[in-house]
Amino acid sequence: LWLSYTGTCLNTKNVGGGWIEAQNSRGQTGLVPEDYIQVRGQCCLCSIDDDEWDDESDDGKSTGGYTWSQSEEGGGTMQLWLYPQTQLDCVVADPKKGTKMYGLKSYIEYQITPNSTNRPVNHRYKHFDWLYERLMEKFGCAFPIPCLPDKQVTGRFEDEFIKMRMERLQGWMSRLCRHPVVANSEVFQLFLTYTDEKDWKIGKRKAEKDETVGVMVFTTMDPEIRELDPTEVEQKCETFSRFTRSMDDRVKDLLSVGHLHWKRCTGPLQKEYQRIGKAFQNLSSVFNTSGYQGEATLTEALTATGKTYEEIAEICAGQPKKDLHFLMETNSEYKGLLGCFPDIIGVHKAAIEKVKEADRLVAMNKIGPQDKHTMAKNLSTMSYALQAEMNHFHSNRIYDYNRVMQLYLQEQVQFYETVSSLYL
Amino acid sequence: LWLSYTGTCLNTKNVGGGWIEAQNSRGQTGLVPEDYIQVRGQCCLCSIDDDEWDDESDDGKSTGGYTWSQSEEGGGTMQLWLYPQTQLDCVVADPKKGTKMYGLKSYIEYQITPNSTNRPVNHRYKHFDWLYERLMEKFGCAFPIPCLPDKQVTGRFEDEFIKMRMERLQGWMSRLCRHPVVANSEVFQLFLTYTDEKDWKIGKRKAEKDETVGVMVFTTMDPEIRELDPTEVEQKCETFSRFTRSMDDRVKDLLSVGHLHWKRCTGPLQKEYQRIGKAFQNLSSVFNTSGYQGEATLTEALTATGKTYEEIAEICAGQPKKDLHFLMETNSEYKGLLGCFPDIIGVHKAAIEKVKEADRLVAMNKIGPQDKHTMAKNLSTMSYALQAEMNHFHSNRIYDYNRVMQLYLQEQVQFYETVSSLYL
Repeated sequence: LWLSYTGTCLNTKNVGGGWIEAQNSRGQTGLVPEDYIQVRGQCCLCSIDDDEWDDESDDGKSTGGYTWSQSEEGGGTMQLWLYPQTQLDCVVADPKKGTKMYGLKSYIEYQITPNSTNRPVNHRYKHFDWLYERLMEKFGCAFPIPCLPDKQVTGRFEDEFIKMRMERLQGWMSRLCRHPVVANSEVFQLFLTYTDEKDWKIGKRKAEKDETVGVMVFTTMDPEIRELDPTEVEQKCETFSRFTRSMDDRVKDLLSVGHLHWKRCTGPLQKEYQRIGKAFQNLSSVFNTSGYQGEATLTEALTATGKTYEEIAEICAGQPKKDLHFLMETNSEYKGLLGCFPDIIGVHKAAIEKVKEADRLVAMNKIGPQDKHTMAKNLSTMSYALQAEMNHFHSNRIYDYNRVMQLYLQEQVQFYETVSSLYL
Repeated sequence: LWLSYTGTCLNTKNVGGGWIEAQNSRGQTGLVPEDYIQVRGQCCLCSIDDDEWDDESDDGKSTGGYTWSQSEEGGGTMQLWLYPQTQLDCVVADPKKGTKMYGLKSYIEYQITPNSTNRPVNHRYKHFDWLYERLMEKFGCAFPIPCLPDKQVTGRFEDEFIKMRMERLQGWMSRLCRHPVVANSEVFQLFLTYTDEKDWKIGKRKAEKDETVGVMVFTTMDPEIRELDPTEVEQKCETFSRFTRSMDDRVKDLLSVGHLHWKRCTGPLQKEYQRIGKAFQNLSSVFNTSGYQGEATLTEALTATGKTYEEIAEICAGQPKKDLHFLMETNSEYKGLLGCFPDIIGVHKAAIEKVKEADRLVAMNKIGPQDKHTMAKNLSTMSYALQAEMNHFHSNRIYDYNRVMQLYLQEQVQFYETVSSLYL
C-alpha cells in the first residue's frame, strides 16, 4: 500500500486519489469517495427536489433554492449537496499594481477567471474581504466559511508577499467554488462574473441589503422533508463535534511542530551544515600547505565533502518551501474551517432546544400546533443541511489530505534521493 | 575522483589509500605515500647506519640506537625513520573486572596481544598511564606522545565506558606501535612482552631509573651525520610549526561543530522528528474516528508517514555514533598530537640558538672548537630526528584522514540511502 501510495504520486498527476466522479440517475455529476462507492456497491447520488422555497426571502431573486441529493441504505442516512455537473473553479493570477487618487494610493489587483465564463474580472484584496464579510453574514451559521489570508500592513508590495497572497486567495476561491451552495449564491456569482463597474456597484449594494442572512438562509433550502430521528441527529452532531474538536487539536499540533521544524531547517540546521562544510574545507586548505606530497586525493575528498555539506545546507533550508509549505497551508486552511464548526453546531443545538421547548409552549397554549410544526420543519431543514455539510467537509478533507500527503511524500523522497546523489 | 573515492571505500576494505609498502636495497620494508613513489619514480628508502651510539647511556642495554633511512633527490631532502619489515601492532581486548585487597578494590584489566609474540599480557589503565609517563619523560621532547584517554572518576565500571576506553586504548597503542623508535624502545617492549609479574616489576624499576630521557635521547641516535643547511632547517621547522598550529585550529573547529551537530542529532532533532511522527499518527487516529467511509488509504498513509518519521528520529539519533564518532576520535587524537609540537619545536630552536652562541664562546675561548663540533653534531642529529618526525607525522596524517574520510562518507551515503528506502 505504502509503495503504491507514493508510487502513484510519483507516476501520475492524479491528485484525486480516493475520489470518483459519479453520476446520478438524472445525469448530474459529483465527487464521491471511491471506497464509498465500493462499499455501497452502487451510485448513491440521486437528486430529490428542485423546487424553490423562497416565500420568506425579501427579494425573489437573491436566493435560489438549494437542493440535496439523498440516499438511504443499510443503517445510515447519507445526505449530500447536489453537486453541479461541471465543478466551478477559477484561476487567480496576474497581480498588477494599480493606483488611484492621482497616484496617492497604491494597491494590488488580481485577475480572477472562472471556468464558467472564461472571462477575467479584477479584484483587490479589499473586495475579497468584502466578499468574505457577505458570505460570513449570509452563510456563517450554516457552513464554515474559510478565513481570508491575513491582512498585512508592511511589505504589501514585495513580490514574495504578493505571490504568497495570490496563492492563498487561489486556495480560498477554489474551496468556495467547491461548495455548491456558496458557489451558486448570487453574491459569489457577482464577484466572479460582474460585467462592468456599474454592474459591480449595483450588485454590491444589493448584496449589502440582502436580509436572507444568518439562520434565515435555512428558509431558502428545501430538502425532501422527512422526520429525522432527533436522537440520531443529536448523536451524529455530537460525533461530528467531537471529531472537529479533536481534529482541530491535531491540526494545531502539526502546525506547531511544522513551524518549529521549518525554523530549525532554515536556521540553526542550515548554519550548522554550512559550518561543517567550512570546517572540512578549511582542513583541506591547511593540508594543502603541508608541502608534503601525496595528499591530493585526501584534500580533494575533504574539499568535496565540505562542498557537499554546503549544498546540503542549501537543500535543507530550501526544503520546507517544497514539502512543509503545502502541508502547512492546507492545515492552516483547516484550522480556519474547524474554528467555524462550534458556532454552526451551536446554532443547530439551539434549534433542537427550541423545538423541545415548543412542546411545553403548546401545552401552555403559548403557541399553536402549527407554529410547532413550522419550527420542527425548520429544524429538519437545518439537520439536513448540517448533515450535508458534514459529508461535504469529510469528502473535502479526504480529498485535500490525500493530495497534500502525496505531494509531501513525493518531496520527501526527492529530498533524500537528491542528497544521496550528492555523494556519488 | 569523488565517485572513485567513495566507490573505493564502498567496494573494498583497503584502508591504506595513498600508502604503499616499499622495500629498500637491503630488503627492509616501510610504508610510504604512493604519490611520493610516483613523483620520485623510484623507491627512496635506504638505510644508512645500524651502529649504536650509547656511550652516554647509563645502562648499556636500555637504549638501542635508532637509525634513519634517508634519501636525497632533486632539491629536497627526505628523511624517514627506518620502518621495520613487519609493522608492530597489538590487539586490546577482553576487558575483565579484577579485585585486590580482598575485594576492597576493583579494577578493569585489558588483554593486550602484540603481533610480534602473539602472547597476551594484561594491563590496567594505571599501567597504561605509567607507560605514558615513561614515554613522555623519555621521548617527549623528540616525538609527540599521544595523550592517553581521559581518566574518569565515576561510571568506570559501566559497559559503555569500558568499551569506549578500550577502543581508545587500542587507538593509542596502535599509534605508538606505528612509531618505529617508540615501538622499539625497551620500555614499550616490556609493556607488551613481559613474561611474568617478576619480569614486569624488574623492568618497571629499571625503566623508572632510565636516565636517557629528555634531550639525552638524541645521544642514542646516529644518523649519517651531514651538515644540514641551517637556514633550510629553520625554514622547514617554521613551515611545519605554522602547519601544526593551523591544523590545530582547524581540528578544534571541526571538533566543536561536530560536538554541536552530535548534540543536535541526538537531542532536539530526534525529538522534533518524533513529534512530527506523533503528529501524523495522531491526525490519522482522529481521521479513523470520523465514521466516514473511504479514508483507509489516507489514514494508512498518515500512519505510515508518522512511523517513518519515528524511524528517521532513531536513525538520526544513532547516526553520530556511526559517522561522527570515528571522525571525532581521530581529530581528538590529532588535537593531542598537535599540542605536543610547540615543545618539540621549541627544544630544536633552543639547540639552534645554542650552536649560534657557540661561535661567540669559541671566539672568547670559553669553549674549545671540539665542544662546538660536538654541539653542532648533536644539533644535526636533532634536526634529522625532527625532519624524520615531520615526515612520520605527515604520512600518518594522510593515512589516518584518508581512512576516516572514507568511513565517514560511506556512512553518510548509507544514512541517506537508508532514509530514502523508508519511503519506498
